[in-house]
Amino acid sequence: MEHYLDNSSTTKPCKEAVEAALDAMTHTFGNPSSLHALGFAASRALEDARESVAAVLGVSRAEITFTSGGTEANNLAIFGAYEARKKRGRRVVTTAIEHPSVLNPMKELEKRGAEVVYVKPDGDGRISPEVLAQAVTPDTVLVSLMAVNNEVGTVLPIDAAHAAIVRTKAPALLHVDAVQAFGKLPLKPSRRGIDLLTVSAHKIHGLKGTGALYIRKGAHILPHTFGGGQERDVRPGTEGMPGILAFGAACRALPDPQKEAKVIEALNARVRAGLQVLPDVTVLSPADASPYVLSFSAGRVRAQTMLNFLSARGVYVSSGSACAKGAESHVLKAMGLSKDQIDSALRVSFSRDNTEEDCDALLSALAEGMRTLQAAR
Amino acid sequence: MEHYLDNSSTTKPCKEAVEAALDAMTHTFGNPSSLHALGFAASRALEDARESVAAVLGVSRAEITFTSGGTEANNLAIFGAYEARKKRGRRVVTTAIEHPSVLNPMKELEKRGAEVVYVKPDGDGRISPEVLAQAVTPDTVLVSLMAVNNEVGTVLPIDAAHAAIVRTKAPALLHVDAVQAFGKLPLKPSRRGIDLLTVSAHKIHGLKGTGALYIRKGAHILPHTFGGGQERDVRPGTEGMPGILAFGAACRALPDPQKEAKVIEALNARVRAGLQVLPDVTVLSPADASPYVLSFSAGRVRAQTMLNFLSARGVYVSSGSACAKGAESHVLKAMGLSKDQIDSALRVSFSRDNTEEDCDALLSALAEGMRTLQAAR
Repeated sequence: MEHYLDNSSTTKPCKEAVEAALDAMTHTFGNPSSLHALGFAASRALEDARESVAAVLGVSRAEITFTSGGTEANNLAIFGAYEARKKRGRRVVTTAIEHPSVLNPMKELEKRGAEVVYVKPDGDGRISPEVLAQAVTPDTVLVSLMAVNNEVGTVLPIDAAHAAIVRTKAPALLHVDAVQAFGKLPLKPSRRGIDLLTVSAHKIHGLKGTGALYIRKGAHILPHTFGGGQERDVRPGTEGMPGILAFGAACRALPDPQKEAKVIEALNARVRAGLQVLPDVTVLSPADASPYVLSFSAGRVRAQTMLNFLSARGVYVSSGSACAKGAESHVLKAMGLSKDQIDSALRVSFSRDNTEEDCDALLSALAEGMRTLQAAR
Repeated sequence: MEHYLDNSSTTKPCKEAVEAALDAMTHTFGNPSSLHALGFAASRALEDARESVAAVLGVSRAEITFTSGGTEANNLAIFGAYEARKKRGRRVVTTAIEHPSVLNPMKELEKRGAEVVYVKPDGDGRISPEVLAQAVTPDTVLVSLMAVNNEVGTVLPIDAAHAAIVRTKAPALLHVDAVQAFGKLPLKPSRRGIDLLTVSAHKIHGLKGTGALYIRKGAHILPHTFGGGQERDVRPGTEGMPGILAFGAACRALPDPQKEAKVIEALNARVRAGLQVLPDVTVLSPADASPYVLSFSAGRVRAQTMLNFLSARGVYVSSGSACAKGAESHVLKAMGLSKDQIDSALRVSFSRDNTEEDCDALLSALAEGMRTLQAAR
C-alpha cells in the first residue's frame, strides 16, 4: 500500500490527461504548423487545450503561451519583462522565499546590472504587504512574487504588490509564479492586476514538461528563445503536443476549487491534529497557509533519515522542496528557523487523490519513526 | 487511406515510445528529484533514457542534456557557447540554410555585438567545404552548421568546419544541429570534432516537446535558463519525463541505420523516377542529399494549392518547412531559385513507416493535381 503525500513535487497524471496524451501520440500526431489535414487537426487540438487553460484563469486564449514547464515560464517572464523595460528602470522587487526558478534568474539579472530587492518573510513565512509595498519605487520595472510558497504554503499579498505599482506609478509589470496555486486557489489575473502568471501542468495532474505563461494582452515582453515562429514568436519550437493536450484535459478535469479545498482542508486538519500529539513536532506552515502544503519539523531526526524510514513504509513526503534535492532550504532559513528545525523539516503536500487513510498511515509511520530513530541517535 | 509523407515535420510516435510515455504517466510518475522510492525510480528511468540517447551517438550519458526540443537545444548551444567565449572573440560562422532556431538566435547575437558570417549555398543547396573553411578565422568562437538541411536534404561538410577550427587555432566550439540526421546518418560527435550537437525526439518517432543537447565533456557553455539545478544546472526545470522516457524508447527502437537507409533510398528513388515522367517538375534536392528528404517544384501550381489538393486525397507533404508556415523559403532563396520555383516547391520526407504504396499514391495524386490545377490556372 502506497501513500503519496508529495503532490507539491509532482502529481500523478489523471486519467483524462493520460487519454489526451495518448490521443496526441496515436491519432492527433501532426505538426500544428503543417498545412495539411493532419496539421490542421493538431492545430485545432492545440487551440482547444489553450482555451481550457485560459478558462481556469478567466482569460482569453491569446493570452496563454505554452512552455516546457514552470521554470521556463518564470525565466521567460523575468528576462522578457526586464529586457523589455530596462531602459525605464533597473529595479526589480521579489521575495526571499521564491522558487529557485525565480531566484536564480534574479541573480542573473543582477549580473546584467539590475538592482534586485528580496523582501524577507517574518518568522511564520509571511510576506508583509507593507514591507512589500515600500520596496516598490518609481524606477521598479518588475515585481515578481509567488502566489503560494511551495515549501510552507504561505499565501503572498499579490494585491498589495499591484497597489504599490499603481501608487508609485512604477513602470513595473507584475509577475506571479502561480505554480502551487493554479487550479487550487481562485486567481483571476485580470482582477488582481497581474500582467504575467506562471502555471505548470504536472502540479494539477497533467504531465511533467509542460507549463504556460499568461501574458496580459498589451503587456509586451521580449522572447527568451528564438526560432520558427510558434507561440506568436514569444516561445518558438514545435509545440509539445502530448503534454499540452494533457494539460488542457487536466484543466477540464479540475474539480470545483472550493469543494476540493474543503476536502483538502479536512485532510490537512487531520494531519495537524495528529502532529500535535506527537512530542517534539513543530508545525512550520502558518495557520492561514494554503491547505495543500503542510510543513513541520519532526523532533531531532534529520529529514533524509525520516524520509527513508517513511519511504520504506510506502509513505512518500518531501524534505523542503524536491527541487533543492537535499540542499538547505532557503525559505526556512529566511524565516529565521534554527538549524535543527531546518534539518528536520518535512513537507506533506496533498491532492484530490489523497484519503484519510493516507493521513493516518503518515501519522502512524511518523510516530514509529520518531520513537525508533530518536532513540537510536 | 492516408499517406503521411511529412516525416521531416514530425513522425508518428512508435509503439515503444507510446508505451514508455504511458509508463511515465501511470507508474513511474515521481519527480526524479524527490528523495523517496518513487523519486528514485523516476531518477533511474531518467538515466536509462539518457543512456539510450547517448548510445545512438556513441557518447557518455553525462554528455546528454535533455531539453524541450531542437529549438531549445539550438538556443542553449548558441547562446551558451557565445556567452562563455565572447571574451576570446566575437565572430560566429554559420550558413544561410540553417533552421530558424539557429538563424534567429544568430540575429540576436548580432544585436549583442557578434559578427555573424552566413555561408551561402551553391545552386544545388550545397555548402562548399572550402568557402566554409575560409570563413573561420582566429577570432571565431562558434561554428554552427546543420548536419542535414531540413528543406532539401543537403548534407553539410562538418569535417571541413572542424578542420578549419583546428587549422586556424580558433577558440571556437563546433555546434551541429543534427535534428534531421540523428538516428539516420552515422554521426559520432567524438570522431568529427563536434562539441555540441542538437537532437530532437519527434523526428525519430518520439514525442514532440523533447530534445537533447550533446555537450562534449570539457566543452563549457553557460546555461540559458536558471532554476532548481536539474540537468547539472545547464538546463534546470522538472524533467519532462513522459517525453524523455519515450525518447529513450524511440532510440532503442531505431533500426540499423544502414539497413533503414537502403529502404528509404529505394522509396526516394521510386518517387524521383516517377517525378521524371511528370512534365514541369524540377527536383531541387541535390543528388547526394539525405534520402529522407526530397524537394521539388511542381510546375506552375502554387505549393499551398497543391498541398490542399493532395491533403484532400489523404496525401500529406509539406511546402518547404512546416516551421515556416507558408512564409517564403530562405533556403530555396539562398540557392538562387526563381520565385516560380520557390512558390511551387514541395517537400516529401520519408520514415520507416512509409511504403511503396505511399509513393505511388503521391505520384498519382500529384499527376492528377498538375493536370487539373494547371489547366484551371
